[in-house]
Amino acid sequence: MKGRLPAVEFFFNPDGVAVIGATDNPFKGGYHILNNILGGYQGRIYPVNPRYQTLLGLPCYASVEAIPEDFELAIYFIPAQGLPETIEQCARKHVKGIIIESAGFSEVGAQGQQLQQECLDLARRHGIRLWGPNCMGLLDGHRRHVFSFMYTDVWKTLMPPGNVSLIVQSGMLSAGFLLMMLERGGVGVSKICSIGNKCDIDETELLEFLINDPLTEVIGLYVESIPDGRRFLDLARSTAKPIIALKGGRSPAGAQAALSHTASLAGDFTVMERAFRQAGVITVYDLHELMDFVRAFSMTKNVNPGNAAAVLTFSGGAGIVTADFLHDHGLASAELAPATLATLKTVFPVWMDPFNPVDVWPAIEQSGPQKVYTTCSQALLRDPHVDALIIHIFAALVKGEYLAEAARLKDELGKPVAVWLVGLEQPLRTLRKELEDLGLPVFDEISRAVSFIAAAKQRGRAR
Amino acid sequence: MKGRLPAVEFFFNPDGVAVIGATDNPFKGGYHILNNILGGYQGRIYPVNPRYQTLLGLPCYASVEAIPEDFELAIYFIPAQGLPETIEQCARKHVKGIIIESAGFSEVGAQGQQLQQECLDLARRHGIRLWGPNCMGLLDGHRRHVFSFMYTDVWKTLMPPGNVSLIVQSGMLSAGFLLMMLERGGVGVSKICSIGNKCDIDETELLEFLINDPLTEVIGLYVESIPDGRRFLDLARSTAKPIIALKGGRSPAGAQAALSHTASLAGDFTVMERAFRQAGVITVYDLHELMDFVRAFSMTKNVNPGNAAAVLTFSGGAGIVTADFLHDHGLASAELAPATLATLKTVFPVWMDPFNPVDVWPAIEQSGPQKVYTTCSQALLRDPHVDALIIHIFAALVKGEYLAEAARLKDELGKPVAVWLVGLEQPLRTLRKELEDLGLPVFDEISRAVSFIAAAKQRGRAR
Repeated sequence: MKGRLPAVEFFFNPDGVAVIGATDNPFKGGYHILNNILGGYQGRIYPVNPRYQTLLGLPCYASVEAIPEDFELAIYFIPAQGLPETIEQCARKHVKGIIIESAGFSEVGAQGQQLQQECLDLARRHGIRLWGPNCMGLLDGHRRHVFSFMYTDVWKTLMPPGNVSLIVQSGMLSAGFLLMMLERGGVGVSKICSIGNKCDIDETELLEFLINDPLTEVIGLYVESIPDGRRFLDLARSTAKPIIALKGGRSPAGAQAALSHTASLAGDFTVMERAFRQAGVITVYDLHELMDFVRAFSMTKNVNPGNAAAVLTFSGGAGIVTADFLHDHGLASAELAPATLATLKTVFPVWMDPFNPVDVWPAIEQSGPQKVYTTCSQALLRDPHVDALIIHIFAALVKGEYLAEAARLKDELGKPVAVWLVGLEQPLRTLRKELEDLGLPVFDEISRAVSFIAAAKQRGRAR
Repeated sequence: MKGRLPAVEFFFNPDGVAVIGATDNPFKGGYHILNNILGGYQGRIYPVNPRYQTLLGLPCYASVEAIPEDFELAIYFIPAQGLPETIEQCARKHVKGIIIESAGFSEVGAQGQQLQQECLDLARRHGIRLWGPNCMGLLDGHRRHVFSFMYTDVWKTLMPPGNVSLIVQSGMLSAGFLLMMLERGGVGVSKICSIGNKCDIDETELLEFLINDPLTEVIGLYVESIPDGRRFLDLARSTAKPIIALKGGRSPAGAQAALSHTASLAGDFTVMERAFRQAGVITVYDLHELMDFVRAFSMTKNVNPGNAAAVLTFSGGAGIVTADFLHDHGLASAELAPATLATLKTVFPVWMDPFNPVDVWPAIEQSGPQKVYTTCSQALLRDPHVDALIIHIFAALVKGEYLAEAARLKDELGKPVAVWLVGLEQPLRTLRKELEDLGLPVFDEISRAVSFIAAAKQRGRAR
C-alpha cells in the first residue's frame, strides 16, 4: 500500500502544459493533443519538438529544458525510450506530473517493464507523479481541458459539463466508445481519466480524488486489476456517491489477456465481486451497461430501500416480460393500494380492472395518452406500496411533459424510475431527450431497465 | 391435442377479404386495416359497414351477407358481441377463416371467455378457422399482404421480403416494436403472425406451417403459453430451421399477468427451458435480444459444432471483456495455429507478438486498417483451431469490403461471425448496412455478440 500521496488536482488544472511530441501533422497524435488543449485550456502551452519554430501559432521549443519558465504538467507522446531523459529535464522545470500517452512500456514485455520501473523510480526521486503510460490522458468537462490524443474535437459540442466521472484502464474504451456515449447524450462529464498501465496514479488514488471532487456525483470504472483493493473498498464504503465498476479479466482467458494488455494481475473475480457488493459498489459486465448505469445513476438522486416495483406499460406482453425480470432480480411486483386502483379506474374502461403490471392500452383508447400517462405515473409513484416504477412508452404516443410531475415525485419520494422506450427513430430520439432532461433515465432493453432498478435498490440498501 | 387440421395458407393468400368494421376515420383501426390491404393485396376486397355506400373508392357492404360472392377471409374489427352473428353470415359465404382483431374476449374475464368459447364452437361447426381474437393479424413480406390495424403504412418501404417469420402473442409487440425492428434494418420478412388469445390457430400450428414454408428460414416467437408443448417440441426437433423463443410469464408474477393478458396458463418455465434446449430451440429473454438473434440467424447458414472462438479487436479492454463472456458461455478462446500467427505477424509491428484475443491497434498504426482487417479476419477464419470469430470494429476505420471475403468464408466453413460495432452514428449506420448486406450480423453489446455465437453453436450441435 502506498503512503499518503500529494493531491493530483494539478493534472486537471495545471498552470502550464508542455506537449512533448507536438506536431502539425494531423495524422499524428501529437497534433491532436496540442489541438485539443488549444480548444479549451486557458493557461500557458508549450509545444516541444526540435523540428519546429512555431506550431499552431505558438512558439515551439526544441526540448523541455528550452522552455523559459517552470510549469506543472507535461504530456509525453514520443517513443518510450526518451522518457528517462524527459523526466530529468522536467525535474529541472519543477514539473509536478507527466501524462505518458505513448505505448511501449510494461505491456510489451520484460524490456518495457524494466523501462517503466526505471522511469517510475526516477520520477519518485524527483517528486514527479506519472499518469499512464499507454493511456489516453484525461478530459475535464467543466474546465474544458482535454489532455488527450483523441483524434477529433467533437467533444467541444458533445461533452456537456456534468456530474459523471470515469476511470478507464483501456485507451480505446475512453476514445471511440466515449465518443459514442457522448453522442448518445443524457450524460454530463466531470472528469474522464484514462490510466493505461497506471504505474503510479491508479484507480484507487483517483477514486479518492473523485470522492472529494464536489463536481463528481457518480463514478464509473473500467479496470483490469485493483492492486490496492483494501483501500479501494474502504473508499467505496466511505462515500454516498454511486460507484459502478466493470472488471475486465474475470475469466482465466480474460485474465491472461489483461496481463498482456496492461500487465495487470486480475485477481479472483468471485472474491472481488462479493467484496464490491458488500462495499456498495455496483458490478456491471458490459460496456453499454456501464454507460447506461452511469447515466441512470447521474439522474437518480435519492433511493429508498423498499423492494416492490410497479410497471406502467402499453403492452401486456412487455409488462409480463418486465415482471419476469423483476423476479429474476429479487424485486417484488407491488400490490397496489385500493386508493391507487381507484385512481387508475378513473381513466380505465369499465370492463377492465387495473392491476400491476398496469397495461394502459385500453385506457389510452378511452382516455387518451396524456391523461393516462399523467394520472397513472403519479398515482403509482404516490402509492405507499410502490418503491420503484418502470414506465414503458411507445414514443409517438407520449410527450415528456406528461411525466414532468412523475420526475419530480421520483426524487422527492426516493423512488427510482426507469423508462423503456420503443418507437421509430425520430420521435424516439426527441422524447428520449425530453425525458432525460427531466431526469428520467431511458433504456433500450427491458432487462437493462430492471437491472438498473435492482442496482439502485442495492445501492439504496447499502447506504 | 387437436386432430389433424386443414392448412392455414388461405389466411395469408385468400381469394377475397371482407373488412368488418371498415371506416374512413383514420383514428380508427378499421380504416388502417382497409388501407393496409389496399396497399398490397391484389384480390377482391369487401369493406363492410352499414353506414357507408363506398369506402376508399370501393363499394361498401351493409353486412357480410350483402357481399355478392363467396370469399375466403374475413377480418373482424367491431365489438366482440357481434362475432357469433358474423360467423353465421360468414358460413353462408363459405368463408374459410376469420381474423378477429377486436379485444373483449377471454382476456376480460369469465363473460368474455364464455363468448370466445361460444364463437369457437360455432366456427368449428361451420368448419371456419379463427385467428385471434385480441391480436394484430398478419403480415406477409413476399406477397405484401398486411391484414392488420397497424396505424402506419411505413411497412411499404421498411419491410423488405426475406427469410424471417415471427409468431407473436402480444399485439403491441407486433406493432410498435416491429416497426422499430424494421426501421433498424438488416432483416427481411416472410410472415409475421400476431395470434393474441389464439383460441384456434396457435403457435404450434403456425410453427408447422412455417417449417413447411419454403420462404421461411428462421422462426422467432413471443409466446405466453404453449398448450400443445409435446407437438411443438416434436416439430422443433424435425426441422433444420433455427427457432428462437421468448417466453413471457417465466415467473409467478409474470405468469399471473399472462393469465390476465391472454388467458394463458404459463406452465413451469424451468421444465420448458430444458425441453427447448433438448429440442434445439434457442431461448431468449428480452425483446431486442429476440430480434437480434432472429436477424443474426437469418444471416448464418451453416454452423460447425466446434467450440473455440477467436476475437479480432481494436481495443485490448474490449478483447478482455469478450474473453470473459466467452468463458461465461462455455466457449473456449482458440489457441491460434503457428501458420495463423505467422500471417498475423506480417501486419504486426516487430515488438508485438499476436495472440488471441488479437488486438490489432498497433498493427493498424503500422499497416493501416484495410490490410489489417482483411488479412487478420481471413487468417483467423481459415485457422483450423478457430470455430467462430468475433470482430470488433470502430466504424470510422473500416469499410465493409475489407470483410467481404471473411463473410464468404464464414458460410463456406460453417464458422459463425458476430461483429461488435462502435463509433459515431453516421459512419456506424453506413458500415452496419454494408456488413449486414454481406451477411455479417452486427451487435451493439459485446455480451449479445457472444451469446449469439453461443446460441449458434448450441443450434449447430443440436443438428
